[in-house]
Amino acid sequence: MGRRIADVSTPARLAGPGEGLGPDELALATRNHGLPLEAMRYDVTPPGLHYVLTHYDIPHVLDEAAWRLTVNGRVRRALSLSPAQLRTYPAVTTRVTLECAGNGRALLTPRPVSQPWLVEAVGTADWTGVPLRVLLREAGARPGAVDVVFTGADHGVERGVEQDYRRSLPLPIATGDDPEVLVAYAMNGGPLPPQHGSPLRLVVPGWYGMAQVKWLRDITVLDTPFTGFQQSVAYRIRQDPEEVGEPVTLIAPRALLIPPGFPDFMSRTRVVAPGTVAVEGRAWSGRAPVAAVEVSTDDGQAWHPAELEPDHGHRWAWRRWSFLWSAVPGDHVLSVRARDGAGNTQPAEQPWNRGGFANNLVQRVPVFCRAPA
Amino acid sequence: MGRRIADVSTPARLAGPGEGLGPDELALATRNHGLPLEAMRYDVTPPGLHYVLTHYDIPHVLDEAAWRLTVNGRVRRALSLSPAQLRTYPAVTTRVTLECAGNGRALLTPRPVSQPWLVEAVGTADWTGVPLRVLLREAGARPGAVDVVFTGADHGVERGVEQDYRRSLPLPIATGDDPEVLVAYAMNGGPLPPQHGSPLRLVVPGWYGMAQVKWLRDITVLDTPFTGFQQSVAYRIRQDPEEVGEPVTLIAPRALLIPPGFPDFMSRTRVVAPGTVAVEGRAWSGRAPVAAVEVSTDDGQAWHPAELEPDHGHRWAWRRWSFLWSAVPGDHVLSVRARDGAGNTQPAEQPWNRGGFANNLVQRVPVFCRAPA
Repeated sequence: MGRRIADVSTPARLAGPGEGLGPDELALATRNHGLPLEAMRYDVTPPGLHYVLTHYDIPHVLDEAAWRLTVNGRVRRALSLSPAQLRTYPAVTTRVTLECAGNGRALLTPRPVSQPWLVEAVGTADWTGVPLRVLLREAGARPGAVDVVFTGADHGVERGVEQDYRRSLPLPIATGDDPEVLVAYAMNGGPLPPQHGSPLRLVVPGWYGMAQVKWLRDITVLDTPFTGFQQSVAYRIRQDPEEVGEPVTLIAPRALLIPPGFPDFMSRTRVVAPGTVAVEGRAWSGRAPVAAVEVSTDDGQAWHPAELEPDHGHRWAWRRWSFLWSAVPGDHVLSVRARDGAGNTQPAEQPWNRGGFANNLVQRVPVFCRAPA
Repeated sequence: MGRRIADVSTPARLAGPGEGLGPDELALATRNHGLPLEAMRYDVTPPGLHYVLTHYDIPHVLDEAAWRLTVNGRVRRALSLSPAQLRTYPAVTTRVTLECAGNGRALLTPRPVSQPWLVEAVGTADWTGVPLRVLLREAGARPGAVDVVFTGADHGVERGVEQDYRRSLPLPIATGDDPEVLVAYAMNGGPLPPQHGSPLRLVVPGWYGMAQVKWLRDITVLDTPFTGFQQSVAYRIRQDPEEVGEPVTLIAPRALLIPPGFPDFMSRTRVVAPGTVAVEGRAWSGRAPVAAVEVSTDDGQAWHPAELEPDHGHRWAWRRWSFLWSAVPGDHVLSVRARDGAGNTQPAEQPWNRGGFANNLVQRVPVFCRAPA
């Protein structure tokens, strides 16, 4: 023997210069998937087009009626609730844009070896459930409570640590109403699909995906800060592995455009005809409402204001923007960038961190405008 | 200028020795996605877990009521049918396992540079629609008809050729009833999702995915063999680019197992505890019903019969199989292989072709059995 469970893990590492994607990154890319960018045409992402990132396996829930969500720890009254009981609470539906904290990782140099997202790890859904603060009020956090820990049913190993997927929120966030955190049991009006956390999941509007614990089975109130793997080891902004690092929290502003025209199958280069091209896309920020969107058609030299639609009452969802481009024959690079009301912007050159988290580098879409017909 | 539309394409090529996946392959891998193998637990694949391969973009269908399916060419009476009109025909529902013709491509040496599937480009759905033979009888193929061409609304460039996605079937297949080809308007009892061909698609049970034309808008009967790009250039089994090659048609037998235990996030290595491990999976063949499934727990040295479930009346769907494994501590490789009633089997060493088509190499799943607790 001699081999231990820790040995099945590969350590965190950076790809070498020019190193293409390896079989481990490919195995993640074929399991998880992004939003095909043309699906940004829908306000609410249809089932199967919303991005999915699963750390371990999608748990097998044989009997939803037997599922229990427990609320434990530093509370006056522990709770144990079935999905059916949760449906008896007043329901709240919130439209939320979710984005993986590792979105953009595969474009970094050097590339952190992990799930290799380009820019498409995003999606928007109507989530229905019970506000977390309602459940925590019923359970009653006792004095000294600081963190609330959420445990999912997905189980695996990561860098040698066997674990259930587990993340925490500070008590003021968990009991707050801006954003209002949900324990959700429905997506777009239907039951949660297996890959989106059936039967119960957390939805934390404005936060990156690592906070959105799926297959939620336990909520524990702690009187000490939570230091689990996904809180203290993973999902930290670090330059060096020894740093404590800053936690990944709210989604940085990002705008993406739907690549116009039609693509080449393999290069994905776009082809348009000369004339007016309606360019559109979405913009979002978890830090403050989006304030402005600008488009460049010359690879970031000049920037032009795009028309930004109102949020139609959906503060936590992406907003549609549009721009009319007068395309002339030749090669072009389209880009778009968002600024939010707190002054957060998107960089033209990518800040780098070891985990490849919280990237919001400006998107670049090469487009070939053909000669007139 | 000087640049032409053909120049946006990258030519077909093979990866060099040790060459990792490039940005173009990654762009395809993040758009398209496979079946997370644990989803083989479901007889019918839930929405969003079925594999998806889109050559170009998912078309934007603004008004389904305005969609028309035309039946043209060498027919006595041309047809033009709306999705609503198609729903007035007697409906047929067939459970079908679909698999991409390129499944397994990324495991080939040398690797054809294209959509980089490992083994997971598969899924099973209940498809509802009108038998194609009913529509072709109504239109009446005229004497001399040989091929029936299906045109989708997805448009793009591929190796320099601008095209709508277009494939054909020989007339006897198109008008036959074994398999019965469907013009489908529903998947698993609901409307087709955009990425699965909304509002109409072809379903050809037993054939690889390239035949399953999505966003179907035209059916043309020809009196000469169809020689379009996707028929004569792509989807051919060739050793050399100059060969005419053999067409890719029926799905070769394949069995896959659900990786047991739990995974490491990055290496995807599986961990199980010692003792009896229930191993299960699915097996299918488009060429003849699956006749036997065997499992190996020692990397293909010894093979043991698995228990194969009956097809429950679903000839064109995968069948569940199971096997009890007595796991002992240490490293193991699990494999499974299927044989169909026509004697087709799965190779232990991969035959190679330039396009990476119709692979059915035996799956290998490394498993670490931990020491007793």
